[in-house]
Amino acid sequence: MITKEQISDILQNYDINNLAIATVCSHSSLQIFHGARKEGLRTIGICLKSPPRFYDAFPKAKPDEFIVVDSYKDIPNIVDELVAKNAIVIPHGSFVEYMGTDDFGELAVPTFGNRAVLEWESDRDMERKWLESAGIHMPNEILDPKDIKGPVMVKYHGAKGGRGFFVAKNYEDFKENIDPNEKYSIQEFIVGTRYYLHFFYSPIRTEGYQLSTGTLEMHSMDRRVESNADEIFRLGSPRELESAGILPTYVVTGNVPLIARESLLPLIFSLGERVVEESLGIFGGMIGPFCLETVVTDDLEIKVFEISARIVAGTNLYPSGSPYSDYIEENLSTGQRIAQEIKLGASLGQLDKILS
Amino acid sequence: MITKEQISDILQNYDINNLAIATVCSHSSLQIFHGARKEGLRTIGICLKSPPRFYDAFPKAKPDEFIVVDSYKDIPNIVDELVAKNAIVIPHGSFVEYMGTDDFGELAVPTFGNRAVLEWESDRDMERKWLESAGIHMPNEILDPKDIKGPVMVKYHGAKGGRGFFVAKNYEDFKENIDPNEKYSIQEFIVGTRYYLHFFYSPIRTEGYQLSTGTLEMHSMDRRVESNADEIFRLGSPRELESAGILPTYVVTGNVPLIARESLLPLIFSLGERVVEESLGIFGGMIGPFCLETVVTDDLEIKVFEISARIVAGTNLYPSGSPYSDYIEENLSTGQRIAQEIKLGASLGQLDKILS
Amino acid sequence: MITKEQISDILQNYDINNLAIATVCSHSSLQIFHGARKEGLRTIGICLKSPPRFYDAFPKAKPDEFIVVDSYKDIPNIVDELVAKNAIVIPHGSFVEYMGTDDFGELAVPTFGNRAVLEWESDRDMERKWLESAGIHMPNEILDPKDIKGPVMVKYHGAKGGRGFFVAKNYEDFKENIDPNEKYSIQEFIVGTRYYLHFFYSPIRTEGYQLSTGTLEMHSMDRRVESNADEIFRLGSPRELESAGILPTYVVTGNVPLIARESLLPLIFSLGERVVEESLGIFGGMIGPFCLETVVTDDLEIKVFEISARIVAGTNLYPSGSPYSDYIEENLSTGQRIAQEIKLGASLGQLDKILS
Repeated sequence: MITKEQISDILQNYDINNLAIATVCSHSSLQIFHGARKEGLRTIGICLKSPPRFYDAFPKAKPDEFIVVDSYKDIPNIVDELVAKNAIVIPHGSFVEYMGTDDFGELAVPTFGNRAVLEWESDRDMERKWLESAGIHMPNEILDPKDIKGPVMVKYHGAKGGRGFFVAKNYEDFKENIDPNEKYSIQEFIVGTRYYLHFFYSPIRTEGYQLSTGTLEMHSMDRRVESNADEIFRLGSPRELESAGILPTYVVTGNVPLIARESLLPLIFSLGERVVEESLGIFGGMIGPFCLETVVTDDLEIKVFEISARIVAGTNLYPSGSPYSDYIEENLSTGQRIAQEIKLGASLGQLDKILS
Repeated sequence: MITKEQISDILQNYDINNLAIATVCSHSSLQIFHGARKEGLRTIGICLKSPPRFYDAFPKAKPDEFIVVDSYKDIPNIVDELVAKNAIVIPHGSFVEYMGTDDFGELAVPTFGNRAVLEWESDRDMERKWLESAGIHMPNEILDPKDIKGPVMVKYHGAKGGRGFFVAKNYEDFKENIDPNEKYSIQEFIVGTRYYLHFFYSPIRTEGYQLSTGTLEMHSMDRRVESNADEIFRLGSPRELESAGILPTYVVTGNVPLIARESLLPLIFSLGERVVEESLGIFGGMIGPFCLETVVTDDLEIKVFEISARIVAGTNLYPSGSPYSDYIEENLSTGQRIAQEIKLGASLGQLDKILS
Repeated sequence: MITKEQISDILQNYDINNLAIATVCSHSSLQIFHGARKEGLRTIGICLKSPPRFYDAFPKAKPDEFIVVDSYKDIPNIVDELVAKNAIVIPHGSFVEYMGTDDFGELAVPTFGNRAVLEWESDRDMERKWLESAGIHMPNEILDPKDIKGPVMVKYHGAKGGRGFFVAKNYEDFKENIDPNEKYSIQEFIVGTRYYLHFFYSPIRTEGYQLSTGTLEMHSMDRRVESNADEIFRLGSPRELESAGILPTYVVTGNVPLIARESLLPLIFSLGERVVEESLGIFGGMIGPFCLETVVTDDLEIKVFEISARIVAGTNLYPSGSPYSDYIEENLSTGQRIAQEIKLGASLGQLDKILS
């Protein structure tokens, strides 16, 4: 992985009064470009083959310019162009997935956030180690499938947008469905309601919800819409449908907005706080947006089943503010907050604290 | 149906600096009036018996004046009054349903949109011909009920707000539930998550997402709330409830907001584009708002099960902007966009291109 | 309960040009403080042990000052301090629940709303008497469990955030699950879709939707997110899960936004109207925000299963306006509307009409 020193060297030559943000044209790019424009930063869209036409329909979210590549594997070839344009890369889930974790880690362009998180996040065992050492309650892990006693969720490693998960009720179920060629983990299936909590950690802001260093924000929440699991109940129960060959799947197709009861906020903030504090110790800390993917049980406990260490697509619900971010600043989006953080880093001479 | 020439003649005598918009007080009228007011157009509410009191509670959406009729069948009698007031009629689903397609087609008042779409939209066979010739993927149609092999949705013809649909799992199910006096169609039941996509086609705007002529916009999305299908799972599965005499029904009671993952946008725009382009060829083209009613499968395919060729009530979620329309113009609603289109048509001398 | 005269005496000494609003730091306090700030009123947060840190993350919703108590039972001890600060208490569900109805009723601080409603709302029998005499359709009550014929919802008395409800399908079900030590009521289970309707009654406003005295507003709607009932369908039907020892529970964890079809608005307003008019007769009238908790059936009938006579947490979805309140005033929240009402009462010399 590229070192902080290498990135600092590149940054030395940046004109910090003329920064641009750059990201891959997918996932949350409309919001990222829109937010950057609101903050007066130039915007660069990295796209395949030709600029996606849909940006023409959204003039306030269209990047100022496009850089076209033939394949996401070619992004390393545009590094010089990005650097020449004073670009700061904003990673999102598709960006990292399309390029591959290794290539993304090597990309010699200043990137918002701490790339050291990739290693901890992409392996479910390390992710669990991080979160559990932070005191986060996760669904129990079942190491030996023969120990499956109640419903479990089986997940293959690596981000695949929810594809390939399945619920098994017992060992027989598991054996029938498992792909023996894939690395998997087995988690207790937590019964409750899903909340995806959108946080933002700033190592350079000094006012707000203070951590040992920097501040924590909570911008919004969403619930992912999963096809077909969210709607097959209209046809029948999973057990009834199994005989018809219809199995529940968990592919994310979009998001719905929601809020949590206010009395959960102290717990919600403490979860975000513990994850950040632990990350500071183990890999120098997450920076910017991250998401805790949780289930709230009927005991009002919050179990975290996954973490995303960058902007999540659920924030796309809120380009003009959310029921929470409006309490920070009217109409604030996470994309806009990223641009604010970059401007703040530049003005404080602390860009090296938020880029890697 | 009234001809374009007749409408042009009526328009000749309009004071285009003093236009009003008029619609029936239901469906999406609050949004339509609110949007027109934001654009400075006068507003006329057509209502039964007496002005609905609820407008008093919403002063920013209350029409400037009401025209009272005893029955929606009497709307033809107020044509002269509407014309004298330089009124342009904004049709919505209830407007057309209450008046009846034939009477609406004959109404001698300039009407936003192309009335020729009515014929194509109100008959499910013609609708399917239109959409499939546009290359849209629809749920398979089953012509002979004996060919039902998996779950199907049986729909009676004509818009009835979701009433009278039923799911059949096989031929026996079908026979038991079908009303032999109604014209019906049988569609494969697509398992996935429902998205109602709110588009807007302008034949006169020249910037944005360009079609062969005019531009395409996508304003927002919703999911309809259907009673009781959306909540009976809390009581039991459809099969379990059948014995208790409780059957799923699909009556629309409202709408929830949602968004789709950004990587679906190219496909979403191409669906809207193909439907518009095809409509240009077969009946001169849709104009203004339309909605594709879809299911997104776990293969991230989008199946279109119906089209509405005018403003849909799901847009009522967004009188002050949506997560998409905010990228076009802050706080833009579909109702407001209709008013903008009328003002643009007037200023360009092209009202005849958007009225019929 | 403290009398209106006692409150009037206290108010005599208030500096009405320097009013503050005070509430307990939970439930809907962010919205209440945020709304009051927008209206220029001072804000006081009453909290346990120490100020909750999460307010630091929401600067626009953080109260100007905190008053710390060791236990909610100690709130009576801060009465003099509140009065010295010209504070008006804004009650919410947690406020009343934490203090206890009796202590809250005695609190010698001017309180927004009519405390006489407490008695009618906290006892399910009196609540039913109120609503049914107003002509509201409620789910049928089953007095003798042996009369259970179809699915019923069994509710224990007192507000407990949805905990302890259960569905019984017959008398055997009921016997198996009932806690014999709790007072309960049995309601027919209405199949349909849930809508929580957020109203506001002002006895002093003179324009808008007029009642016999004052005006009625409808600000927004939500659907409560209930753990685990809203998501267990992903695992199996209630009957299938019963054998695995997993029972549906109805604990509110948050809220999702939604709207109702516009043609339901006349009925919705008439429900709010009848509840207010009846309350004027039986206890002098509700004041300010209240919520009707309803199910909309597939006949488009609205059954009311409960009333909350103060601000509900579902309004937290809309700190910057809702699809309805935007038609009243752009970005209007219920919290802001409360502050407006207090300012209006002060300017008209009619604070005694809205406080108790």
